[in-house]
Amino acid sequence: MAKKPLPKSPLGPAEMPPLPPIPGVQLAAGSAGLRYSGRTDLMLALFDKGTTVGGVFTTSTTCGVPIDWGRARIKGGRARALVVNSGNANVMNGEIGKITARKTAETAAGVAGCSVDEVFLASTGVIGEPFHPEKIVAGVEQLGRELKTDAFEQAARAIMTTDTFPKWATRQVQIDGRTVTINGIAKGSGMIAPNMATMLSYIFTDAAVEAPALQQMTHFCAERSFNCVTVDGDTSTSDMCLVFATGKAGNKPIAASRERRARDFFIGLRDLMMDLAQLVARDGEGAQKLITITVTGAASRQAARKIALSIGNSPLVKTAIAGSDANWGRIAMAVGKSGEKTSREKIDVRIGGVPIAEDGGIVAGYDETPVAAHLKGQEVLIEVDVGVGRGMATIWTCDLTHGYIDINGDYRS
Amino acid sequence: MAKKPLPKSPLGPAEMPPLPPIPGVQLAAGSAGLRYSGRTDLMLALFDKGTTVGGVFTTSTTCGVPIDWGRARIKGGRARALVVNSGNANVMNGEIGKITARKTAETAAGVAGCSVDEVFLASTGVIGEPFHPEKIVAGVEQLGRELKTDAFEQAARAIMTTDTFPKWATRQVQIDGRTVTINGIAKGSGMIAPNMATMLSYIFTDAAVEAPALQQMTHFCAERSFNCVTVDGDTSTSDMCLVFATGKAGNKPIAASRERRARDFFIGLRDLMMDLAQLVARDGEGAQKLITITVTGAASRQAARKIALSIGNSPLVKTAIAGSDANWGRIAMAVGKSGEKTSREKIDVRIGGVPIAEDGGIVAGYDETPVAAHLKGQEVLIEVDVGVGRGMATIWTCDLTHGYIDINGDYRS
Repeated sequence: MAKKPLPKSPLGPAEMPPLPPIPGVQLAAGSAGLRYSGRTDLMLALFDKGTTVGGVFTTSTTCGVPIDWGRARIKGGRARALVVNSGNANVMNGEIGKITARKTAETAAGVAGCSVDEVFLASTGVIGEPFHPEKIVAGVEQLGRELKTDAFEQAARAIMTTDTFPKWATRQVQIDGRTVTINGIAKGSGMIAPNMATMLSYIFTDAAVEAPALQQMTHFCAERSFNCVTVDGDTSTSDMCLVFATGKAGNKPIAASRERRARDFFIGLRDLMMDLAQLVARDGEGAQKLITITVTGAASRQAARKIALSIGNSPLVKTAIAGSDANWGRIAMAVGKSGEKTSREKIDVRIGGVPIAEDGGIVAGYDETPVAAHLKGQEVLIEVDVGVGRGMATIWTCDLTHGYIDINGDYRS
Repeated sequence: MAKKPLPKSPLGPAEMPPLPPIPGVQLAAGSAGLRYSGRTDLMLALFDKGTTVGGVFTTSTTCGVPIDWGRARIKGGRARALVVNSGNANVMNGEIGKITARKTAETAAGVAGCSVDEVFLASTGVIGEPFHPEKIVAGVEQLGRELKTDAFEQAARAIMTTDTFPKWATRQVQIDGRTVTINGIAKGSGMIAPNMATMLSYIFTDAAVEAPALQQMTHFCAERSFNCVTVDGDTSTSDMCLVFATGKAGNKPIAASRERRARDFFIGLRDLMMDLAQLVARDGEGAQKLITITVTGAASRQAARKIALSIGNSPLVKTAIAGSDANWGRIAMAVGKSGEKTSREKIDVRIGGVPIAEDGGIVAGYDETPVAAHLKGQEVLIEVDVGVGRGMATIWTCDLTHGYIDINGDYRS
């Protein structure tokens, strides 16, 4: 089956930074013909001995076999290999799905010379279509002969599904005066509403970080990045974010996320994950506008995030933005349906920095002209204060357009 | 401002039943010019002395003034007048909104010769645009001179916003051998995801029912009808359902919802509310298909309803149905994101009665042909068993099409 590629999102970045090698990481990507012939659909990463791993996983109760597999092994804190395929998700496939996962892990363990418990797996694509092991096992064996240190960009392409551009980001920070590098890749375009987890994202660093500290940092950063992006409110069965630290930079290992010497690394990791999350929103199916929503004055950070996501998931808000309509009443509606505590008489709403409503009503002499001009642009900023506390959060989403209907009305993804 | 009417939904009924008069109820509907000139936008109903009332209201925390007004008075259990306007919702309007509500109620109380506490109010339309009392007060006074016993259909038209057809239903049932009549009207097309409440619906009966029993029945029936319909997952700030019982049928008043002699009335009320709820789904913005979703095997009725609504609110499921794509994996995804207890290894999915998945995987030898044929039709049936208990629920929704984007991308409703 061939598939015509979608045009690149107008919100995609014009340039992407080059990704430097990460000592201790080798990668390969190729086409195993899992769904569409000729499309890159498989990646393999190998890590040197001593690599630690932290990760978060989808809360979906119909999650795929690779999620179960990873969740059972993440506490071990050690990783030597990662296999990711696109095209077909290993979800709702019964016994054959479990067999496929095990055989894939065994093959990768053979290539890496490690235990199967040091192999992590992921899959993304169609749910519920039988997933047999033959092609992926052969693909992993082939990729094991093609490993390189500079294949991050090919790997980013291999994990794409309806994505219109590959997503990666990089940072260099200092730990104890040593430069460490962090590279991250991600995929995601539809079925995006991570819930205490994330879409597929893999992050690689040569920093030395003990596994429990890496786990804490991964969770903290995912909460403020991937868990703050939504395209359509649908939570994937295959979401995960894994961070691999090879330790090759030679710094004294970070033992706790709160260590002062870990601060720059922690911020760098968070910022890189925010970059990747925003790239996902920029590639939301059918997106014409990136929408940033900041909620302040909530009872807690979690409440602010829930209110912001309620706004960001509202089809009525997203279609209004698509139509450049400054319909602030729909924003108020979405605040109200969140169920979180708000003070109706104190709600402020600003779009593009322009106050529209203050203390629960439209501002006197409100002039829609500058707001309408802001809404014609590609980046829309919505700010809401709900007047009850000090909790704040920012989330990213996109508008809801005819393109979303086109992509999802006839594409089995 | 004039507004071109939308074409009637292809799912709208070809014929509607005539509504008989209800002794003790007089109505009038007309145009007060609240938003669009020349469009019927105001209705007034008066009830004879002794009329009881039950009602449920939106759980939105940014709900409108008429919701506060009604919630404060529903416990009184008595009603003499109802005023409903469309075009502009009295929501997020600050002090002037409260003044408008009070003046409207005072005017209606003057017309009815009753206390303001026996007047119920509702409004629907744009949120957050100032709502002044002059036009509505003049409109109520005018309608007070035009009351009729046969104006139900005009009243149903007066409460429409983006609805493409008026919605009503009627039932006649027996209480103690006496025939009683129930008429109901409703509006709703977008911003439809009632949450322990409902969209705007007003139901009138000549049965004698004591207020506490009427309240119990209203809540029970709304849970199984209006609370089981969704168009876009957005919960309105103005949702309410009120049931008025004039007692003119002369039956001995029903004192409790569980009385055996109330049984036919209770079932009739529930069925009438289910009819109205389905009419709302049939008029969902942009709807081309009515989707009925039944979930069985859940831990409780509430869990089944939550899972069914998770499927019914999923943009990915709704666009797949729009595209006649038998993508059962998206249904499994929506089950998983509900957060409710399910057994992944026991999930069954049927579309149009055809088993697609059993025990968590696709059925052996599955042939998509009959499912594809079913999905081409205007009525789609999805059945899911989640394999953990005996809870079941049915909900109604519609597909997500380009029409929804058209309506909401450029219409401030």
